[in-house]
Amino acid sequence: MSMNERVIDEVSGDRLWADLMDVAQFGSRPDGGVGRLALDDNDIKARLWLVDRARELGCTPRVDPVGNIFLRREGTDPSLPTVSTGSHIDSQPAGGAYDGIYGVLGGLAVLRALHRANATHRRSIEVVAWTNEEGVRFAPGTSGSSAFVGDRSLEETRAIVGTDGVTFGEAADVCVNRLRQAGVSVCELGSAMHAFVELHIEQGPILEMASADVGVVTGIQGVRWYKTTVRGMANHAGTTPRRARKDAMEGALELANALRALAKDDADVTRFTIGRFHLSPDSINTIPDTATFTVDLRDPDEKVLDKLEQEFRRLIAEEWAGCSAAIEVLSKIPSVTFPSSITGVIEKSAQDLALNAPRLVSGAFHDSMFLARHCLTGMIFIPCAGGLSHHPAESIRADHALAGARVLASTLLQLAT
Amino acid sequence: MSMNERVIDEVSGDRLWADLMDVAQFGSRPDGGVGRLALDDNDIKARLWLVDRARELGCTPRVDPVGNIFLRREGTDPSLPTVSTGSHIDSQPAGGAYDGIYGVLGGLAVLRALHRANATHRRSIEVVAWTNEEGVRFAPGTSGSSAFVGDRSLEETRAIVGTDGVTFGEAADVCVNRLRQAGVSVCELGSAMHAFVELHIEQGPILEMASADVGVVTGIQGVRWYKTTVRGMANHAGTTPRRARKDAMEGALELANALRALAKDDADVTRFTIGRFHLSPDSINTIPDTATFTVDLRDPDEKVLDKLEQEFRRLIAEEWAGCSAAIEVLSKIPSVTFPSSITGVIEKSAQDLALNAPRLVSGAFHDSMFLARHCLTGMIFIPCAGGLSHHPAESIRADHALAGARVLASTLLQLAT
Repeated sequence: MSMNERVIDEVSGDRLWADLMDVAQFGSRPDGGVGRLALDDNDIKARLWLVDRARELGCTPRVDPVGNIFLRREGTDPSLPTVSTGSHIDSQPAGGAYDGIYGVLGGLAVLRALHRANATHRRSIEVVAWTNEEGVRFAPGTSGSSAFVGDRSLEETRAIVGTDGVTFGEAADVCVNRLRQAGVSVCELGSAMHAFVELHIEQGPILEMASADVGVVTGIQGVRWYKTTVRGMANHAGTTPRRARKDAMEGALELANALRALAKDDADVTRFTIGRFHLSPDSINTIPDTATFTVDLRDPDEKVLDKLEQEFRRLIAEEWAGCSAAIEVLSKIPSVTFPSSITGVIEKSAQDLALNAPRLVSGAFHDSMFLARHCLTGMIFIPCAGGLSHHPAESIRADHALAGARVLASTLLQLAT
Repeated sequence: MSMNERVIDEVSGDRLWADLMDVAQFGSRPDGGVGRLALDDNDIKARLWLVDRARELGCTPRVDPVGNIFLRREGTDPSLPTVSTGSHIDSQPAGGAYDGIYGVLGGLAVLRALHRANATHRRSIEVVAWTNEEGVRFAPGTSGSSAFVGDRSLEETRAIVGTDGVTFGEAADVCVNRLRQAGVSVCELGSAMHAFVELHIEQGPILEMASADVGVVTGIQGVRWYKTTVRGMANHAGTTPRRARKDAMEGALELANALRALAKDDADVTRFTIGRFHLSPDSINTIPDTATFTVDLRDPDEKVLDKLEQEFRRLIAEEWAGCSAAIEVLSKIPSVTFPSSITGVIEKSAQDLALNAPRLVSGAFHDSMFLARHCLTGMIFIPCAGGLSHHPAESIRADHALAGARVLASTLLQLAT
């Protein structure tokens, strides 16, 4: 039996499941869900729990100034950049027990397997818990990973004011001090990494629909947020004939349908969502003078997004039911393609384990979006029931949880060798 | 010259215009508009002004328990039911100087012309100012006319609580007492009327588009208010492929378009308006689970409304983008058709005056909707600029104001003879 096989063999699904249930107690909700906001007392308790577990396995815990936790198992050549894994501990206010934390505890399961197999590896292997991925208490999210890679400065990150009036900086200081009191040393931002591999639940239905065990994530799709405004003329709903109307609702209906039709691809890859829609004056017997709606547009291919945006702009320049329209870009986050040097190792690892492991693109953001600017990055997904996440009923299968951790173990070990 | 011709000749456009400007001072706004809420101090002052003008013309003022004012010019046979005209004095909070009050002052112009021509008529001719047509301070509106005809009881009307916490009954008592102090006697509700003819601005663009002088109103269209709900399933906008969505917004878009298409008549008579539209959870990156929208549907023909409602229900029973839909009736007000015995006299009067007087249906409600249950009823419209009303910029032409009052004079005199 090779070392790789021994390590995979030592990954314990039972222990991983027990850890998931243990950490779900930090911020547990009466409805069975989890509400663990970034840097709150439950988040800090979960970090301290994690530090204790890592120490039991002979790993060294560290914390950086934004509260990111690093649990390091030393390699035979500690001078080399690490092979890292991890995800986030925080959840949505009415979230589940797997989004984020599964990737951290999956990493812990690998550290435990390496320890039990007494494995050696050239590069140090590290589990990271990134601070405030969800962005609920402090918006925007992915604070820990974006500060780590220098996408957002430490000063800017610390200045973010939370929904409770506490700044991110103040909350991070509380967290860092409690960890220091527990003997955890503080490290710098942006430590060198050779590779980062994140394990996460899919948060979508694709793997479940394909009866897959795990998914090989080839990248994270780009996302653009638009606000569209249609302007007509308010008037009396009873006295104004159709030929004299400039009905912003009618214009918005036609425009929204036309935009939707443009984004309707046969392959069902492009995502088009109108999540907000408002009329003014919002009166039952008044023809609306203004309609505004948002478009959330996503695709793995930036060229597709560019082309759609261009076509959107062309349509919006036209007249819609006598109304004028305008479009505003609210946000633009480019797509990420993970290097084949990482996805190849993940795919091979899954194949060696005889797992059904299709490729897919991540529809949601992840800390890996920022890590991809820092080192070779990849992601492993496991299915979640009905694709549901950000909900107390979020649910995964124990065999999938184990499968993901085994693929992660194999991948990290190959990258660290 | 016949008596009818002498009376028409005595209708003074200058005096009518001066009266309009005088009464616009009661509740005048800095922006040139009028804000005169039902039974407020300005409304009462306008009534006292009106009583003084009527007395100058030898007419007897009366007030009923809900504050409706009656200015009566006695006929040669006072035992006969009256021929009445009038409208309302109250306005929208940011209203104009013509909606309602033009019909009252047009009636006053006729009383003045009858007085100056020393005309005699068999039936008494009466000008009425109905209380709280707009329904701004006390909702719903048309309080005075609906209590007068017994559609809403006096007790129920008095119990309505105003936006300022004062009941309609308390406010009416203040008004009635001030009129009594001015020597106005109190009469019963529901006095006998042979006919009621209301003069009003169109509040729509039809007459202006037709370059008409006045309009012969053949009825008031029926109106139905619906609330439509489309239910899908909330999900992540980034991770959920189209084939796995039940997008309430997509369903609502398709359903709203289908309903709109059903109501699209070649003759442009049916009015279809979606004035309110809400999504839940109203988040930019969440597929909506619920969309609700209102439909304001109007047509002069109840059979058309019945048929459309039936077709709406058939469509709503279908599935829309994987979502279910439901419809709820919020309100149903049947259409009114005015008797040809009144519209014929109005039309003939306008023709004799060589006016361009097309027929049209009223798109808005009026006190005449209730009077039609009490006596032979009709309405005369004049154009208003751009169809605009309920707005400080509401505007009419002086020649149209005069034309409407002359048609009214001729009509009332013929009905009273």
